[in-house]
Amino acid sequence: MTIYLPPLRDIHFVIHHVLEAPKQWRNLPAYADLDEDTAWQIVDQAGRFAAEVLASTNAVGDREGCTLREGDVHTPAGFAAAYQSFVDGGWPSLMCDPAYGGQGLPKLLEATLYEMLLAANHAWAMYPGLLHGAYESLRQHGSQELKERYLPQLVSGESLAAMALTEPQAGSDLGLVATRAIPLPDGSLSITGSKIFISGGDHDMTSNVIHLVLCRLPDAPRGTKGLSLALVPKLLPDGSRNAVSCVGLEEKMGIHGSATCAIRYENATGWLVGDPHRGLAAMFVMMNSARLHVALQGLGHLEASRQVATRYAHERLQMRAPARPAGAQASAADPIAWHPAMRRTLWTLAALTEGQRIAAYWTAMLLDEAEHHPDIERRDWASRRSALLTPVLKAFLTHHGFHGTSAALQVLGGYGYVREYGIEQHLRDARITMVYEGTNEIQAIDFLMRKVLSDRGGALQEMLSEFEALANQCEGDLAPLGMSLGRACAQARRGLAVVLQAGEEGGEAILPVADDFLMGVGYTLMAWAWCRIATAARNLEDRELAAQKLTLARFGLSSLLHDGSYHWKKVRHLCSPLPWLAPEG
Amino acid sequence: MTIYLPPLRDIHFVIHHVLEAPKQWRNLPAYADLDEDTAWQIVDQAGRFAAEVLASTNAVGDREGCTLREGDVHTPAGFAAAYQSFVDGGWPSLMCDPAYGGQGLPKLLEATLYEMLLAANHAWAMYPGLLHGAYESLRQHGSQELKERYLPQLVSGESLAAMALTEPQAGSDLGLVATRAIPLPDGSLSITGSKIFISGGDHDMTSNVIHLVLCRLPDAPRGTKGLSLALVPKLLPDGSRNAVSCVGLEEKMGIHGSATCAIRYENATGWLVGDPHRGLAAMFVMMNSARLHVALQGLGHLEASRQVATRYAHERLQMRAPARPAGAQASAADPIAWHPAMRRTLWTLAALTEGQRIAAYWTAMLLDEAEHHPDIERRDWASRRSALLTPVLKAFLTHHGFHGTSAALQVLGGYGYVREYGIEQHLRDARITMVYEGTNEIQAIDFLMRKVLSDRGGALQEMLSEFEALANQCEGDLAPLGMSLGRACAQARRGLAVVLQAGEEGGEAILPVADDFLMGVGYTLMAWAWCRIATAARNLEDRELAAQKLTLARFGLSSLLHDGSYHWKKVRHLCSPLPWLAPEG
Repeated sequence: MTIYLPPLRDIHFVIHHVLEAPKQWRNLPAYADLDEDTAWQIVDQAGRFAAEVLASTNAVGDREGCTLREGDVHTPAGFAAAYQSFVDGGWPSLMCDPAYGGQGLPKLLEATLYEMLLAANHAWAMYPGLLHGAYESLRQHGSQELKERYLPQLVSGESLAAMALTEPQAGSDLGLVATRAIPLPDGSLSITGSKIFISGGDHDMTSNVIHLVLCRLPDAPRGTKGLSLALVPKLLPDGSRNAVSCVGLEEKMGIHGSATCAIRYENATGWLVGDPHRGLAAMFVMMNSARLHVALQGLGHLEASRQVATRYAHERLQMRAPARPAGAQASAADPIAWHPAMRRTLWTLAALTEGQRIAAYWTAMLLDEAEHHPDIERRDWASRRSALLTPVLKAFLTHHGFHGTSAALQVLGGYGYVREYGIEQHLRDARITMVYEGTNEIQAIDFLMRKVLSDRGGALQEMLSEFEALANQCEGDLAPLGMSLGRACAQARRGLAVVLQAGEEGGEAILPVADDFLMGVGYTLMAWAWCRIATAARNLEDRELAAQKLTLARFGLSSLLHDGSYHWKKVRHLCSPLPWLAPEG
Repeated sequence: MTIYLPPLRDIHFVIHHVLEAPKQWRNLPAYADLDEDTAWQIVDQAGRFAAEVLASTNAVGDREGCTLREGDVHTPAGFAAAYQSFVDGGWPSLMCDPAYGGQGLPKLLEATLYEMLLAANHAWAMYPGLLHGAYESLRQHGSQELKERYLPQLVSGESLAAMALTEPQAGSDLGLVATRAIPLPDGSLSITGSKIFISGGDHDMTSNVIHLVLCRLPDAPRGTKGLSLALVPKLLPDGSRNAVSCVGLEEKMGIHGSATCAIRYENATGWLVGDPHRGLAAMFVMMNSARLHVALQGLGHLEASRQVATRYAHERLQMRAPARPAGAQASAADPIAWHPAMRRTLWTLAALTEGQRIAAYWTAMLLDEAEHHPDIERRDWASRRSALLTPVLKAFLTHHGFHGTSAALQVLGGYGYVREYGIEQHLRDARITMVYEGTNEIQAIDFLMRKVLSDRGGALQEMLSEFEALANQCEGDLAPLGMSLGRACAQARRGLAVVLQAGEEGGEAILPVADDFLMGVGYTLMAWAWCRIATAARNLEDRELAAQKLTLARFGLSSLLHDGSYHWKKVRHLCSPLPWLAPEG
């Protein structure tokens, strides 16, 4: 019943017409040889893998879940086979450094691959999805020996990775991490402690699992400044089993196919990654990569559930619509896609999906530029811009991944609530994305305090200026769209002025508006994306597609920016102290 | 881990201080003898039943679900025993007519009972929850013979009821119902057809299940004007089995303990309830009762998950808060209840829960007045007012039941996503409330077209005038609160003017704003409720409670009405035609 169709036409429009990625590749020596056709073949093949191999494992993974038997985690039927096929296709190495066996392709293509994998099977895609954060972390901070030993097996997909941060008492507050690491004479570490909520901490898809464990050396200062990062493999280099054991699996609301492990390290052997007490810096590389990945989960759910709702709405006949499309025949009952409330929902989903795809892919392109642009200033700029965008993407796209999926479910009525149509699984799976890799509230605080206030809004203002330049370029029949974008930017500037002033009074005054501030910027980003759609549509040869894209951009810019205004209004009004809440609640 | 505490102090405040229900009872002859203490003992006992008997069956019901074995539906462990205890306690008969063995108590007390039952175990409470709609439907429209045969067994709880409306092709559009009813010489009907999504269509909690089936007589006109209502019992009066069979159970996102049946009637014996072709009128009695019931489901989930989140937030220590309550000691990590983002969430949940309780209980009181007030004009007025409020309650309370539960889950972070804390079950269970008994979109259309435009906004304006009178009564330190309520009413009046004008242009122009219109009125209702809280708090002897309630009212009126403004703004801007959506989506 759930058939995921890779949205290739929409992806092509975004990559080639909106973001004009091939132009960027020509400016980056690493991708200068990449031609458009090859790139598109990769996207096309990725879509086939997602739709033809992976999608059929999604419902079964949800029903079966993972099981822990005699200390080993077993994934649902079909998961390991799909992974083997993924490895055989060379997908794990897509964007990795050729020095370690990678294909050296742009992160943009990886983002496209993962959007589709995550839409087809979120739980499955988490296993390889963690790989690239671990790859980057190790590549940037690992010793030569560790890199040579572990990078090739991560790049080939022979081994998978796990991020071991959380402990029962240390969730959002990593400063409370207590896992101990004792240095041994041979330069290795002996790791002891308990971690929880470790996605892919154990499984049967690869024989080895490379854990990156946040821990504390004996002489560590308290808090986050005393954290170190250790690489702790499930299998030691000699093939023997390390003292790493899965002691429990969480029963969860969704992503049942993803093993959420409680892991016990009992004098396990590990090696330091990066400098002592600087584990958080090494971990942040992994977390930033993971945050973009989680944003793509939100996008994947939105696209997949939008597809289900749209198809259903055109097939389901209920009541006469108050108006019909030109030329439609009268009948006893019309497709619910013709009813105003449903049309509004479906257009909203379409506009948000496309806007968010643009924002996510743009960030991936910035990461490519941050790594490969010949000009160091441009690299720094791209790095700052992607850092600015990452928390917004993570929170905004996962918010809409969940709430948009809920809106899509509503289109199906009672059929949305039953398992058969698959959309309720998307809703259950999507809910975790607002929580993990830093809750959306943590993203909002990170964004406001570290990405905006820390440079007195400089990076944000620079981005708004670019958006305003685009707004001013919208002429003729696009002028009203440019004006909408201009108004959205003006609201963002007013909101920024409010938080800059309130920020001088300290965190207590400003933190209650952090969520609204992030959401407001998210809608500003959407306004920019919709304007980019409109300007790109003007140059399309396919006039039917152009008209459709223009309608979508107009709908977004005229109907959905009330949501942004709402958040900015709250930013302007809520900078006042909140009452305390009695423990009795 | 999930412990539901009946919120008796808050309920007492609403019933006795805000709504002053005992005053109303003295004006209604049917309740003139009901004294406050007796009424409160009933609420207290209801709370004990919910917390001590029912709450422990909630998680197990979710895990086990219902099973269909050899044509019979089996409910989860403990469900039948809890129901027997419910019957033994005399709870089914609470508000029923003493002529049929009922206790003749106010519907308000029943609303209180069900808020707590639904919070403790939504799936279980659906079985008896359907009973009262069936009772009302039969009492108002059944023949004397049917009433004498079936009302006593429904009142005692010996039998339970099921509403059989939906068919695969007929969901929101009941005009498409195809189940046939052939009159037989003995005055009975022979019913043949298939129904789906029938909650409690079969189970093992009572031996008989009384189905009220929407069907079509041979000479029926097409559409909704040809629908009749038939009573079709699982067991015939001679004790033999009727041709009613459960042919399937839906696998659902939640409410696993509630049997959602596909039912086949194969020349089943039934009897007409009400006039031929006037089944919808008889059914609407049942549906209106059911809609208030569903609103209480939303409230129950909100209260239950608010409790879990509030307790967790006071126990969980993570990071230092930017400010501490007066007198609190410094420590390495503070309760997350002290962090601004969490405080905002918890206050929002508290203010919405209490506001919604007031709105729901008020509607129950109006239903009592509509039935029992000695003055016919007052009865008519109360009936119109409750009809005005019912779709708003259904959609607004279930919207917040789901979204508020999601916000509560977020407070628990990763712990919210695992089964252990029970909040993810609340989220899954709550999701159906936005769909069944008429989707929230259908409620919005019903409200706008039938309750507002049909009398050119007269009933709504009358209610707004009452709200404005309250706003004007707010003096001294309550004056700013009255001003907030006044602004909310002014926005509602502007929104109403917009839809009245657009309404003259026909449905296509106005329907896209129906949802926002309903939500806007919902927030206006909240503003009124918060003002009522503030004025009631002033008269409380318990000064600590008074201060807490006043803080809650201030928070709602100063921080949450932006949400109302947002919806009114959309009402003012969205009355423009929506683009069509191509079938390809």
